[in-house]
Amino acid sequence: MTEIKIVKDILDANEQRAKENRKLLDDNNVFAVNLMASPGAGKTSLVLQTIKALKGKARVGVIEGDVSSSLDAELIAREGVPVVQINTGGECHLDANMIRNALENMPLNDIDLLLIENVGNLICPAEFNLGEHKKVVIPSIPEGDDKPFKYPLMFLKADAIVINKTDLLPYLKFDTATFTQTVKGINRRVKVFPASCTTGEGIQKWVSWLVSRMQKR
Amino acid sequence: MTEIKIVKDILDANEQRAKENRKLLDDNNVFAVNLMASPGAGKTSLVLQTIKALKGKARVGVIEGDVSSSLDAELIAREGVPVVQINTGGECHLDANMIRNALENMPLNDIDLLLIENVGNLICPAEFNLGEHKKVVIPSIPEGDDKPFKYPLMFLKADAIVINKTDLLPYLKFDTATFTQTVKGINRRVKVFPASCTTGEGIQKWVSWLVSRMQKR
Repeated sequence: MTEIKIVKDILDANEQRAKENRKLLDDNNVFAVNLMASPGAGKTSLVLQTIKALKGKARVGVIEGDVSSSLDAELIAREGVPVVQINTGGECHLDANMIRNALENMPLNDIDLLLIENVGNLICPAEFNLGEHKKVVIPSIPEGDDKPFKYPLMFLKADAIVINKTDLLPYLKFDTATFTQTVKGINRRVKVFPASCTTGEGIQKWVSWLVSRMQKR
Repeated sequence: MTEIKIVKDILDANEQRAKENRKLLDDNNVFAVNLMASPGAGKTSLVLQTIKALKGKARVGVIEGDVSSSLDAELIAREGVPVVQINTGGECHLDANMIRNALENMPLNDIDLLLIENVGNLICPAEFNLGEHKKVVIPSIPEGDDKPFKYPLMFLKADAIVINKTDLLPYLKFDTATFTQTVKGINRRVKVFPASCTTGEGIQKWVSWLVSRMQKR
């Protein structure tokens, strides 16, 4: 039974650290969002679109989670916002401890919103709270409309879902109504925003929701 | 140091079990391929295309790995080939022990080729040998051409790469030459096959390679 005990220990320790992160964020009036998705679904593109839409309205900081490389962090830094890169080595998800280390390098006094881009993975990140206020999942049209059946925990934990790459709908079989119905069956309270980070379609609705959640806090 | 020891124990035990699986496959003249990719990249579509292309040439069996659901297994079973579904629960990858259990339910005397569809994930499956003869990674055009930088281990371990969804190239920024160059930088010996499981483009080259590897064994 050793493994079971250790898994529980890890999750318990993570939960404790996540609570400490949340307190640090709240003490600094920073609203944090954990963005999760498959590789290539458009997490970085959504971060970039969100930064642009919030210019002059909210000060954004970004934590970039990747197994390897700092490509996305470099892309985001060009927008003139503070970015901290976490390279997990082999780890398939961010955890609260990694976020604590990253927060020490983030100018919390200078930001209102922290976007945390998790590692590209629809499974493991769902199990680890980071201290975030909201969890957002970004499925994309080319992945197909069956993903909620296959990765239910991720969709169960989401506060909002941004279905990215709607610009590809003419070329692919993806039934947005069926997808939304499936998601609502798993998670009745979740908000669903179809969007395209390429054309900008739907971004305003997502950002309006985000701002309303920030203000409601 | 407890965790480190246990991770090593798990990987050692997996390696041992993978060797046993390989022996069982070899004793039965079954060639096994481990198919790995992001969620929605087209693993199941490639399995279906491969079964069709090999009709009358090789008898195929399929092991379907999913966190949850049996949607893909049901789709494949309609092709009249033996299918065993593994639902991992929360686990983010298949391991050699799961494959051993699945092999007990697979009619090894009646198949020449075993296609193992791993869980949709570009990270964890790379670390676990299953006893397969070849590892194949299926990136897809909509995921973007930067994936080898972000998930290097997966591309390092691959014997072949099928770049799926080439039919979407006209609508997306994806530089196939750059992608191939990056992959070859990580893994010089890997074979790269651009293909579309929707139009059938490139499938014949992939299947020819597969057949040549089966014969070379």
